[in-house]
Amino acid sequence: MKVFIAGLGLIGGSLALALRDRQLADEILGLEATEARAAEALACGLADRMVSFEEGVSTADLIVLATPVDTIPLLAVKALNRVNSRQVVIDLGSTKAELCEVIEQHTRRSRFVAVHPMWGTEYSGPKAAVHGAFAGRTVVICEQERSDKDALHLVEQLFRSLEMPLIYMAAEEHDLHTAYVSHISHITSFALANTVLEKEREDRHIFDLAGGGFESTVRLAKSSSKTWVPILMQNKYNVLDVLREHIHQLQLMRRLIERDDKEGLQEMIDRANSIQRIIH
Amino acid sequence: MKVFIAGLGLIGGSLALALRDRQLADEILGLEATEARAAEALACGLADRMVSFEEGVSTADLIVLATPVDTIPLLAVKALNRVNSRQVVIDLGSTKAELCEVIEQHTRRSRFVAVHPMWGTEYSGPKAAVHGAFAGRTVVICEQERSDKDALHLVEQLFRSLEMPLIYMAAEEHDLHTAYVSHISHITSFALANTVLEKEREDRHIFDLAGGGFESTVRLAKSSSKTWVPILMQNKYNVLDVLREHIHQLQLMRRLIERDDKEGLQEMIDRANSIQRIIH
Repeated sequence: MKVFIAGLGLIGGSLALALRDRQLADEILGLEATEARAAEALACGLADRMVSFEEGVSTADLIVLATPVDTIPLLAVKALNRVNSRQVVIDLGSTKAELCEVIEQHTRRSRFVAVHPMWGTEYSGPKAAVHGAFAGRTVVICEQERSDKDALHLVEQLFRSLEMPLIYMAAEEHDLHTAYVSHISHITSFALANTVLEKEREDRHIFDLAGGGFESTVRLAKSSSKTWVPILMQNKYNVLDVLREHIHQLQLMRRLIERDDKEGLQEMIDRANSIQRIIH
Repeated sequence: MKVFIAGLGLIGGSLALALRDRQLADEILGLEATEARAAEALACGLADRMVSFEEGVSTADLIVLATPVDTIPLLAVKALNRVNSRQVVIDLGSTKAELCEVIEQHTRRSRFVAVHPMWGTEYSGPKAAVHGAFAGRTVVICEQERSDKDALHLVEQLFRSLEMPLIYMAAEEHDLHTAYVSHISHITSFALANTVLEKEREDRHIFDLAGGGFESTVRLAKSSSKTWVPILMQNKYNVLDVLREHIHQLQLMRRLIERDDKEGLQEMIDRANSIQRIIH
């Protein structure tokens, strides 16, 4: 199978490595936004050669869109415009409603499979790609009933080979749940980093005292704005909804502390503890 | 050296293991709040035997207070009431202003050294104690000028043997900086867990989708209310101050998203990214 990956950053690049490690691709064609990144991608072994979008789409069996989510809907249309009835196009983006709406009435919509592997790190670009990235993580397939059976089957087999459990969701449903479980975590972490940078003027203190739990909550704050501004804007209404609830929860905790309400504070913390029944 | 540790949970228990692993104690005497926990502590090898507070304080060379911070000031006074001029008392608590104020005028204040090792996990109790816990983490010593030279020297040598870099701070300063760097991270994480539990009614979705960054930001939400209510209450004013700033930062992000202000959002995320110059 010949695979074309548009966007060889953290996600696309890690997929390239996984395809190579498991010998799932005969050839990997790549595309990157700049010459510098293209050179990096080649140096990291993420593609056999770099090609234009047109060449990639016209020659690959599987076309993978792994660029920032604001660019995916138009690239999806342009790819579908060019593919034949045996080629398959997928994306790996973190939002799905906008994409699925844009391609809904395309005459070759059924050659597309909307895919979201639930894995990431705070790093980005070709150098951020890592071996063994996806194994054990869930992969979400959206609107699977709109994809041709052979296209869906190819994608399912591919991600099963990467040891990823498959789940299926409507696009709207996917965006709602990822806002709750992934997108809000990034907002929290960005805001926490800015809080500490604002209040703590001496870097040295942050560095010395960070053993007290700070690193884990602030890790995601290193994530790239190029990736995250598009995600937060595309999932605006779900993100705002969960962000309002999060601010409300923080205000509740603030009021309990202000009023010395130890019992109330204990109740909130005990309730929060119940997250361990889900996340071990 | 005979060591008495009051509180063989995560911190006290991990210190016991470190003392054993490095053969820094000839005998470790322990005290736990309940018989069940005392039995756990013995089963985990955290102490040679369990003793009363009175026996521990009257026979040990080094007395370590590792109980929740609301109990430490009175235990410190009671320990100092009984020690002679060669014994040393330390605490391992996460707050220092209240403690240092309470013992300030004690006639044997100089036998006390106020210590905060900057290490922890989200788990608690004797079973949470781990080997190799403290190495490489900073240990803060507060008000070191109020401790006798020999007492301070013993404590410095002990934590240097555990490979912990030492830093010195006034108690008020310690509580201010730990509010910024440690305590706010826990509040954020508790609030995030409650947000997601409130908004996402299906546990299964949280479990399936958590690969998107959720685990790392919510990890601290498993932390015990028995540990954290006392810390947040004892450090109330600093915690409220940093919590106000954190809510403000989240409201700023909310407004930028509401207004589709991509440039503003990008600026906030880029600013948050600069945390990586401090935390790698």
